[in-house]
Amino acid sequence: MDIKQTQAFSAINKATEKAQQLGVNANITILDTSGHLKAFLRMDDAFLGSIDIAMGKAKTSMLFRMNSEAVGEFLNPENGTYGMTNTSGGLVGFKGGMAVKAAGEIVAYIGVSGGSPDQDFVIATAGSEL
Amino acid sequence: MDIKQTQAFSAINKATEKAQQLGVNANITILDTSGHLKAFLRMDDAFLGSIDIAMGKAKTSMLFRMNSEAVGEFLNPENGTYGMTNTSGGLVGFKGGMAVKAAGEIVAYIGVSGGSPDQDFVIATAGSEL
Amino acid sequence: MDIKQTQAFSAINKATEKAQQLGVNANITILDTSGHLKAFLRMDDAFLGSIDIAMGKAKTSMLFRMNSEAVGEFLNPENGTYGMTNTSGGLVGFKGGMAVKAAGEIVAYIGVSGGSPDQDFVIATAGSEL
Amino acid sequence: MDIKQTQAFSAINKATEKAQQLGVNANITILDTSGHLKAFLRMDDAFLGSIDIAMGKAKTSMLFRMNSEAVGEFLNPENGTYGMTNTSGGLVGFKGGMAVKAAGEIVAYIGVSGGSPDQDFVIATAGSEL
Repeated sequence: MDIKQTQAFSAINKATEKAQQLGVNANITILDTSGHLKAFLRMDDAFLGSIDIAMGKAKTSMLFRMNSEAVGEFLNPENGTYGMTNTSGGLVGFKGGMAVKAAGEIVAYIGVSGGSPDQDFVIATAGSEL
Repeated sequence: MDIKQTQAFSAINKATEKAQQLGVNANITILDTSGHLKAFLRMDDAFLGSIDIAMGKAKTSMLFRMNSEAVGEFLNPENGTYGMTNTSGGLVGFKGGMAVKAAGEIVAYIGVSGGSPDQDFVIATAGSEL
Repeated sequence: MDIKQTQAFSAINKATEKAQQLGVNANITILDTSGHLKAFLRMDDAFLGSIDIAMGKAKTSMLFRMNSEAVGEFLNPENGTYGMTNTSGGLVGFKGGMAVKAAGEIVAYIGVSGGSPDQDFVIATAGSEL
Repeated sequence: MDIKQTQAFSAINKATEKAQQLGVNANITILDTSGHLKAFLRMDDAFLGSIDIAMGKAKTSMLFRMNSEAVGEFLNPENGTYGMTNTSGGLVGFKGGMAVKAAGEIVAYIGVSGGSPDQDFVIATAGSEL
């Protein structure tokens, strides 16, 4: 079951409210479970460079079906996975990307960028439960 | 004056309502006046191939500050503008891209793809006046 | 329901047999319904340049949920759809891309290149019914 | 002597059987000795992000005629080879890429991704002897 447009806007609205509480200007991306763009919002004054980071976190989470920071553990060069970070057009392995669930089932992936990784994680989490 | 997040969602909602009236499943892109992504929605069952077309129409309109089909007149190979279609990462020169105005001033560009060019034009027009 | 690995090989084998009957050395691509690569075979002596064409035909068919040559009708510059051919990383709008069905349901998309468009169409058709 | 289509499927089948023994869902790429795609299989439930990693491992092994993890030793930033990882469209320098031999001669390169690097190595090895 892939995410519906009303669900996608609901996820973005929940994330936006949390971002406003934290005083963060975030970019928020919703990808379907195959990685195709479903919805996006750049909050006012959010960094332009964070558009692509938000896209990358959601994509990275989707590609490996785990949080973006969990993929990041595999990207640590100390693990010897040289070049993995450049695969699939570039992976983004820090906090802010995760699955979006409805009734316990994964329906999409969300990527958030604009604050600190910890803030982005909290904002994404707010949008991850429909 | 660049578009605000509430205005961007307003534009998408107006376009979505028009699309639903026409029975079209559309992709709707809002770019700021510099061409950076502000907001996006892929309506349910919209063609995946139309994501990029909607992006391209809005970009093309922004780059030349005219409707996408007006840029298209310059792209007609009969005009001898060989290769112009490939500039700026690829132009899309048919109906569905135009400026978004608030109080008579351009604040963004909208791109719509999913129906026929004429349908896309009507849907984009619905989202172009805030 | 997305295509299984055994079904993907079955589709490739059916297409390969048909290609051998026709004396064509074909490239055969199977994409899932979201466009991610599932299986591929380059038959011996097939053109290297046809690898990407086979990929493009399957992608084009998937993106618009119709045969690649049906998308091609929209790409005709006489229709004024300038630049559409360059969207989504490049569309390929001639015969050889179509849906793969199992029990009447679309489970994948096949793209074939190596012979004439008509030969590619016949080969793809052979692989399109599981 | 470049790999034949029947040999390519044989290599993929051997690797697939090994992966199933290990309980790994792998992506398996076969490139010819020039680096052009010959055959590919994404096993059911394999990570989408591993498609490109499998491709990258086989390419990396082919480009330097050694196992992908042997190339990885040159990519370690401690060696001062800054930027080498980005060459040739991106190298992938960990286990899972190696030559495929028939009668002692290199006829292709195999790349495997989906399990741990050690699992990918075992799976690739299974497909590397025809």
